[in-house]
Amino acid sequence: MARVSQEHLTARRRQILDGARRCFARNGFHATSMQDVLQETGLSAGAVYRYFRSKDDLIAAIASQVFDEVGSAFAQAADAEDPPLPDVLLPAVLCRVLAGPTQATPALALQVWAETLRNDELAARMREGYARVLESWVRIVRGYQERGLMREDVPPEDTARVLIGAAQGFLVQQALFGPLDPHLLRTGLRGVMGMEPPAP
Amino acid sequence: MARVSQEHLTARRRQILDGARRCFARNGFHATSMQDVLQETGLSAGAVYRYFRSKDDLIAAIASQVFDEVGSAFAQAADAEDPPLPDVLLPAVLCRVLAGPTQATPALALQVWAETLRNDELAARMREGYARVLESWVRIVRGYQERGLMREDVPPEDTARVLIGAAQGFLVQQALFGPLDPHLLRTGLRGVMGMEPPAP
Repeated sequence: MARVSQEHLTARRRQILDGARRCFARNGFHATSMQDVLQETGLSAGAVYRYFRSKDDLIAAIASQVFDEVGSAFAQAADAEDPPLPDVLLPAVLCRVLAGPTQATPALALQVWAETLRNDELAARMREGYARVLESWVRIVRGYQERGLMREDVPPEDTARVLIGAAQGFLVQQALFGPLDPHLLRTGLRGVMGMEPPAP
Repeated sequence: MARVSQEHLTARRRQILDGARRCFARNGFHATSMQDVLQETGLSAGAVYRYFRSKDDLIAAIASQVFDEVGSAFAQAADAEDPPLPDVLLPAVLCRVLAGPTQATPALALQVWAETLRNDELAARMREGYARVLESWVRIVRGYQERGLMREDVPPEDTARVLIGAAQGFLVQQALFGPLDPHLLRTGLRGVMGMEPPAP
């Protein structure tokens, strides 16, 4: 039997994941079967099962890629010197992830979230990914406070969660109601940012 | 055959929906069957099918109740004279809905959203409900601008979407990572609101 190169293995794995993603995007996780993935990729059952034993394995692999990509994108933003304000940073990172190699879509994100409600392993991975994003955002928010751009009497974690929530909500709206111009997230955040702080 | 009173019909309908909600909360939409709902409510198939022909009917009825409740809550806020700022208004309305008679939960919201991706009728109802919430928020944001509390060079609809998104993101985080103190949404929003607006 011929020895299979690492590149071949990686390319084959990517081919399967790309096919699965197309099936999931078209019909959702539940209406997609392993048979559909075989047909989409044009590969034999043996070739596919060598890499992924089940649909859950495929979902977990795709979700992990996206968590990694989102985590890296925000970690990089947090590592930068003087990251831009949220109205610039948030749409930039979202666009980067949505245009990235994992081909994450808002509808895929929504499906992964719903799937974590009944899949403990996926839920655990998601919590790890979220912890990483939260940690990055806390660092970014602390930086805003240190630079005098944000009031200091608010716990950084609370504002970090609200900003992550704004991104999640933007994904929800895109998944449910179709594409939205990311510029809208920018101007919308500016509206909130420029508000009169509440009276003491 | 005895004539059945309207109260009896309403009470029976509520009994079925309450039972279905408990099943959905426990096992999700997909792992719940009509048989589970019969067992949960202790009613016969005939009694249940008289009100709801299918699980999809039950999901649509529960989702509609929640859309109505969310729509009314924000419409009422928009009708009020000088609604409070977002850091007060948003957590207040969210708490009201989550503690309301429809027993909406973050996990239920997430499941309904994911379900709309494969259920066109539900998607249409959801779009109607969202349009109503957006319209209320645009009115609220315009009020902020008229009262001099928010910059006027930002389209009210963009800020309305971002604020709705913050609420949706808060629900996502609660569904995925467990209960969060609504106070966190309040302080977190204050952090964003108090930020230095970007340089022109």
